[in-house]
Amino acid sequence: MSRDLSALFDPRSVAVLGASAIPGKWGFWLARGAVKGADRRAVYLVNRKGGEIFGRQAYTSLAELPEAPELVVITVPAEGVEEAVDASLDAGSKAIVLISAGLGEMGEEGAARERAIVERVRAAGAVLIGPNCLGIHDSGAQLELCSEELESGSLGLISQSGNLALEIGMVAAEFGLGFSRFVSLGNQADVQAAELVEALAEHEETRLIAVYLEDFRDGREFARAGKAAVESGTPVVLLAGGATEASARAARSHTGALASDLEAIRAACLGAGIELVYSPKEAVDVAMGLLSHRRPRGRRIALAADGGGHTVVASDLVIAEGLELPELSEATRAELATALPPTATLVNPVDFAGGGEQDIRSFERVIGTLLRSGEVDTVILTGYFGGYSQYSDAFEKKESLSAAGMARAAEETGVPFLAHTMYWRSGPAETLRAKGVPVYREVEAAVGVASRLARRTPEALLGVPDLPPPAAAVGGPQDYFSSRELLAAAGVPFVEARQVGSLEEALAAAAEVGYPIVLKALGQLHKSDSGGVAVGLRGPEEVTDAFERMEGSLSPPSYSVEALAPLSVGLELIVGAKRDPRFGPVVLVGAGGLYAEIVKDVAVALAPVTEAAAEALFRSLRIAPLLDGARGRPAVDVGAAARAAAVLSRFAAEHPEIAEVEINPLLALPEGALGLDARIVPGEDAR
Amino acid sequence: MSRDLSALFDPRSVAVLGASAIPGKWGFWLARGAVKGADRRAVYLVNRKGGEIFGRQAYTSLAELPEAPELVVITVPAEGVEEAVDASLDAGSKAIVLISAGLGEMGEEGAARERAIVERVRAAGAVLIGPNCLGIHDSGAQLELCSEELESGSLGLISQSGNLALEIGMVAAEFGLGFSRFVSLGNQADVQAAELVEALAEHEETRLIAVYLEDFRDGREFARAGKAAVESGTPVVLLAGGATEASARAARSHTGALASDLEAIRAACLGAGIELVYSPKEAVDVAMGLLSHRRPRGRRIALAADGGGHTVVASDLVIAEGLELPELSEATRAELATALPPTATLVNPVDFAGGGEQDIRSFERVIGTLLRSGEVDTVILTGYFGGYSQYSDAFEKKESLSAAGMARAAEETGVPFLAHTMYWRSGPAETLRAKGVPVYREVEAAVGVASRLARRTPEALLGVPDLPPPAAAVGGPQDYFSSRELLAAAGVPFVEARQVGSLEEALAAAAEVGYPIVLKALGQLHKSDSGGVAVGLRGPEEVTDAFERMEGSLSPPSYSVEALAPLSVGLELIVGAKRDPRFGPVVLVGAGGLYAEIVKDVAVALAPVTEAAAEALFRSLRIAPLLDGARGRPAVDVGAAARAAAVLSRFAAEHPEIAEVEINPLLALPEGALGLDARIVPGEDAR
Repeated sequence: MSRDLSALFDPRSVAVLGASAIPGKWGFWLARGAVKGADRRAVYLVNRKGGEIFGRQAYTSLAELPEAPELVVITVPAEGVEEAVDASLDAGSKAIVLISAGLGEMGEEGAARERAIVERVRAAGAVLIGPNCLGIHDSGAQLELCSEELESGSLGLISQSGNLALEIGMVAAEFGLGFSRFVSLGNQADVQAAELVEALAEHEETRLIAVYLEDFRDGREFARAGKAAVESGTPVVLLAGGATEASARAARSHTGALASDLEAIRAACLGAGIELVYSPKEAVDVAMGLLSHRRPRGRRIALAADGGGHTVVASDLVIAEGLELPELSEATRAELATALPPTATLVNPVDFAGGGEQDIRSFERVIGTLLRSGEVDTVILTGYFGGYSQYSDAFEKKESLSAAGMARAAEETGVPFLAHTMYWRSGPAETLRAKGVPVYREVEAAVGVASRLARRTPEALLGVPDLPPPAAAVGGPQDYFSSRELLAAAGVPFVEARQVGSLEEALAAAAEVGYPIVLKALGQLHKSDSGGVAVGLRGPEEVTDAFERMEGSLSPPSYSVEALAPLSVGLELIVGAKRDPRFGPVVLVGAGGLYAEIVKDVAVALAPVTEAAAEALFRSLRIAPLLDGARGRPAVDVGAAARAAAVLSRFAAEHPEIAEVEINPLLALPEGALGLDARIVPGEDAR
Repeated sequence: MSRDLSALFDPRSVAVLGASAIPGKWGFWLARGAVKGADRRAVYLVNRKGGEIFGRQAYTSLAELPEAPELVVITVPAEGVEEAVDASLDAGSKAIVLISAGLGEMGEEGAARERAIVERVRAAGAVLIGPNCLGIHDSGAQLELCSEELESGSLGLISQSGNLALEIGMVAAEFGLGFSRFVSLGNQADVQAAELVEALAEHEETRLIAVYLEDFRDGREFARAGKAAVESGTPVVLLAGGATEASARAARSHTGALASDLEAIRAACLGAGIELVYSPKEAVDVAMGLLSHRRPRGRRIALAADGGGHTVVASDLVIAEGLELPELSEATRAELATALPPTATLVNPVDFAGGGEQDIRSFERVIGTLLRSGEVDTVILTGYFGGYSQYSDAFEKKESLSAAGMARAAEETGVPFLAHTMYWRSGPAETLRAKGVPVYREVEAAVGVASRLARRTPEALLGVPDLPPPAAAVGGPQDYFSSRELLAAAGVPFVEARQVGSLEEALAAAAEVGYPIVLKALGQLHKSDSGGVAVGLRGPEEVTDAFERMEGSLSPPSYSVEALAPLSVGLELIVGAKRDPRFGPVVLVGAGGLYAEIVKDVAVALAPVTEAAAEALFRSLRIAPLLDGARGRPAVDVGAAARAAAVLSRFAAEHPEIAEVEINPLLALPEGALGLDARIVPGEDAR
């Protein structure tokens, strides 16, 4: 990675291959955009038939150009793509933007053609964007080689969908945000998202990177690039497509994408500090919050509005988000009282009760007091602000001054300040935005972003671990006992167990293990659902009964006789790992036992994880309070559970031939932890 | 209830008491609005000082008017309110809109003045809106007696906040929705929300009722009115304020409201079929979905867009909402193929792959095919539609024809059809809206509303039960044993238990009950958290150990010796009831045991509930699959658990002196159910 992409964003010369004078054609838009940069660089329009395009004589081939075109943008029919790429490379081009579709997204034949093209490009030391893309745009460099017209601004956008890029652009524009750079990824045959994230992080005009991606290609490289961007002060917002079965099927047709599971994407985002969003609107809302570059230290919110209804609705949203609305101190209330009428509510939420209408500058004083109080971590203004400007010019002037004062107080205190107003396009709202305060259209957007910012703790990032070298492959399918043995050898403690085939062997094993015991019928995927598990058998008679019942109903190939773990003092957990095609092994820890499927309380991370990271994952679960004991139960040994998860994560990372590995339940005990079940599923190649 | 409110909405004559010629004053706005209706009714402006207002000679008192003003709107300083109300009644007014504030929301003295005013109004057979309100508006009757200017339309709006009404109005207007009637509730001293919901349900021009409410007053009456409206075909959308502690404290200051718990509000909405929302934007989004009056029969969605990225993002949102995206049949795919290019994706989601651009009428054909397929319950269009109109007038014409065609297919099939488009204000989007198709600005809004409509099953409404006559009060505080006895007497089965004071008594009781037993230290609120519960003691020795340990660490006033319930074959549930100040007793059922606090899996209903309704509540829980047995456990007797919940709900409903009653856990067994604990908390009056 880390190839030089400068020829893409600010080439000395550009050629449009397939330029056209016919409006509506791709070659028309591209030629028109290219010509806009003619003050800054040589622009060559190439059309097989020659003729005049935008007042310029078109060349009939790249070979005719007076110099090597540093960047060539190609829009020719699919069957001519190889010839066009070869001609570009022959002409000395160092960067190609391949608009044409009909390659990698069209099945194996197209994919093979695409691979061959990339080989030739790389052999020539050049880079290629696309194919099947909309082009590239750099506001600062006056490079407009795409069909979309974008407002200038501070967002860098990398997108695998043209229409979504367009929608993100339209929504961003409504909130006054524009773009520094835009790259349409297409099939990512050569240049991939990771390289572009790296390039945008180094681009001065780009203050935030927004990405829409269906295929992460080298997922860890993407995560690493994102983490580096975040750490260097350029936040990354990711809209990820294809994270469910239905959307993956859509993505496959769209860009030939090999999609990743949502859990893998979440793990990568958590490790890298990337903000994962689910829609264009959410992407813009979150971007506005991140662009202020102020981070809350906790979850305490102060709410203010001139109007009781707005404070009431916002309060409910704040509490529903799991944020806090602490009562303000007497001192702070006294200070607020000097700025507001006697009917105002001061306790938090703060309701001006008409005080804003009486004196618009009271917004400045109230918000300033709240920001300086030290009693809250974020201040949210909601409701009518911005609307007073409708009354008169004098009101508008005061309201804009008040907006500037609020923004100044936020700047000075460094405390995050977010606003929602019904008048989100008003002059005072624009003043707030211009001075770095995000102003939202919906109160739920403001509260949602405040909550997201409060959850964001970059210092606690799990990171993007390197993969260890593969260990010797474990071979094909694994049964219960071989799975147990592999994991036990790796260092996971399991409850004592003996594999038996007959009642006689079962009774002998039970005597060795010591009563009470557990008898499991093996060879069943869901042993406990089918009556294949008998727990707490207290003597030979009970073992005989259970054995004969299972023999009759299930006739399993073999059985396991196991010591009875002290379930009543333990807590059932799950630890597992799954291999994602793009992000590699992902470790999962969660609540186990009867409620596991219902609670769906899991935390994920890119594998392998350290013990400390695994413990942090357990502590992030909703069941975390139970780890420390609850309802008269003792605390459990989280360290031991974390050790088991870390060991399993390393095992998964060292065995690329394994698709899934799971210990469910892992019983965390007051001292230690014990695997009570194990399952290893080989990857398709190893089956 | 059911008073005649026609004098409020379409009076034969109106007087504005406190009319003013000075812009910015309330009396100015009201006078201006009143005069607009002068073609329809006599309008009298009254100002103590006389003079000319809007070209009319103002009367100096109501006594001077030539006829009785059927409606008087009063905007005078707080101290003059009693005099103004008396003068109105003396003049023969049948309806008063009291704008003035400074009464019920200002503490006990103001509340007493407010009550006295209402008594006089009622004695005169009149009705009163307010005080502390913004007025009233009826588009059809040209009655404009409020400070807000509202677009005409089909929404009836009842609001306890002026600014929220304004915001709802602004958001609605963006989507082409206006208002048939608006009533600002203020303190609801006389006319309450329930009566207005009833009046709006009967109002022909009102097709949907939107309500913002902080105080439900007679909550059951409100729920009943809502249910009647819904059943007569007028949906009700409720934005409820004050459902959390922080917002209740804000609401109290705002309108003197006595707020209700979110659970009580949810129970009422579930019983009545009212749609509960959390923000103005959500209110409008949901209203748009309900106004189409088409209801899905299930959760199967078909998604379509001209653009792969949009189908991908929408698919992920659909799956996240718990909706389904079934693959379409071969026959349907074949039909779709005739309308789209060969590169299109047909399986669901349907990606036109540029087919829309090639032929805009393909939208009509594709959506028509999906609506008629019988394979899905809702069709969602997302993405670029509406944008082709930018290219040329010819495109716009075709796109609008396509919009009309889609709307017609939705109409003909009766299958719900929702759209999201980036061009949500375009001509084709307006065409869709005009023909009854909701068009959303964000794809997540479209998907969220589709999911809400799919959850909506009015036929399964629990209803709004009447309260039974109170039984003999049970007196003051209840301990564990008296709580158990009261509930056992009502019909809840409990595990066998003996109250004991000494070790000797404990051993005797244990022998009677039969080993193994449970020993509980009483007088502890959280017995199990403090080591006050010992489970499964197998003989006198273990009882003695446990007793001595509790005696040493807790020295409780007494103990309970109980039979050990068969925990391993049972499922721990919670049943309880709580009295809400506005909605009365609300019954709650949920998951119990160790995970209860974490799972927070509860269902609520207005009490009392029948056994059948209680069973439906249990079946609506996320743990419902466990009721039928899972992981090798037997199915439990849901009927018995439902019987216990129904009995408890009736007990709570018959005892208004009780604030809370709870059985946690209620152990549902393969046959029967057993209460293992009980708690009754008296109301404040009975403490």
